Amino acid sequence: LTAAADTLFLAVPCAVADKAMDPVLPALRPGTALVDVTASSGEAKKRRAVPVEARGVAFVDAALMGPVSINGIRVPALLSGSGAAAFQNAFQPLGMSLEVVSERAGDASAVKMVRSVFTKGMSALFLETFLAARRAGVEQLVFDSIVRSMEETPFAATINRYLTGVAIHAGRRVAEMHEVIDTLHELGIEPITAEATKKRLERVAAAGLREHFKGITPKRYAEMLEALDPAGARTKDTML
Amino acid sequence: LTAAADTLFLAVPCAVADKAMDPVLPALRPGTALVDVTASSGEAKKRRAVPVEARGVAFVDAALMGPVSINGIRVPALLSGSGAAAFQNAFQPLGMSLEVVSERAGDASAVKMVRSVFTKGMSALFLETFLAARRAGVEQLVFDSIVRSMEETPFAATINRYLTGVAIHAGRRVAEMHEVIDTLHELGIEPITAEATKKRLERVAAAGLREHFKGITPKRYAEMLEALDPAGARTKDTML
Repeated sequence: LTAAADTLFLAVPCAVADKAMDPVLPALRPGTALVDVTASSGEAKKRRAVPVEARGVAFVDAALMGPVSINGIRVPALLSGSGAAAFQNAFQPLGMSLEVVSERAGDASAVKMVRSVFTKGMSALFLETFLAARRAGVEQLVFDSIVRSMEETPFAATINRYLTGVAIHAGRRVAEMHEVIDTLHELGIEPITAEATKKRLERVAAAGLREHFKGITPKRYAEMLEALDPAGARTKDTML
Repeated sequence: LTAAADTLFLAVPCAVADKAMDPVLPALRPGTALVDVTASSGEAKKRRAVPVEARGVAFVDAALMGPVSINGIRVPALLSGSGAAAFQNAFQPLGMSLEVVSERAGDASAVKMVRSVFTKGMSALFLETFLAARRAGVEQLVFDSIVRSMEETPFAATINRYLTGVAIHAGRRVAEMHEVIDTLHELGIEPITAEATKKRLERVAAAGLREHFKGITPKRYAEMLEALDPAGARTKDTML
């Protein structure tokens, strides 16, 4: 197989992906490409790329953004790694929907996992919000109010406004979440996401950002993240 | 006080609001208005409106959407109740920022509380997402990816797409949340919102909506809510 193929796909359950590479690795020919489409974490793909690239073989971290069972070959994928651009050039014309995010193995899978915190989190928020709105008899009013405020500003500005505002106002919002949680209990809706929201905001309130920024909302959200997690990517030791 | 005033404001901590009304109620004159600006739940305001309106006094449920300490008289407020429109006409010209949501007391406060599940929940999601993105070294890539997908469709369509999709795909998304949670642990980020997301989605997966809709995504999100909570506003007895 490896003797004939120019592009080899690693498509196995991620629990056995490392083991599956053992017999493949010595047979890879320089100048070919290995496309890792497993649902592994970015760290796992970064680790698997090292011996592959050491043999002169291009590594492609492909993160599938939907189920193959529904989309088939058209399943959208994020790509990263040394072979990402060449793979996109070769396979995009065949009907695949590919986006290169960077040249570093692991980035595509990390982006996929991390953006899921937000996208799947939104579906949970919508569920809790609209189940409560329906119980309170204000479903359409809440829908209109949320749509109006979300369409007032471009989404990039919304992210920045929420993340900079929270540096100064986290404490007050924790207090407001107590009332929100009481309201959900009255309506018979378990405050699953609301309790998580309160806990996340409590962490920020406890971090003393209000004092750090002297009560003035920072301009860019990166300043807030920097203040919350000064070491950032350099260490994963402080649990946040 | 009540003898001279045409518009009376009830502005006390919500724990003592009912008690504060005891001496006020008998002194209210027909044709005047009582504006309840307490941070009470919609249910509490609805209850307080009954004896007030029985005396021929207009009731205004005013839900303040920001702190008076920062905004002063310009604090934005949602209004509902029998006196909402008249109050807006009289006070908007004085520089207040008022929006009437309905004629029913309680609606304004219910909208405020319920939309907070979403808006404050978003700030928590952004926190967890971008702390993780920073730790994974993909902060800008995640920002760009989220902004691009959120600006593809109007927000009203996004709400509908997320809530209808979840009817069919909740089970698969629960499985994906396991991987997301593992990734957060690897990065040293406590999966506070991610665990809540998984739990909310598990509830939907367990409700058998996939079978109910015979595997076909419903068109409107209202169909999904109806299937999850058939009794809706008529009962708050089933905990959701």
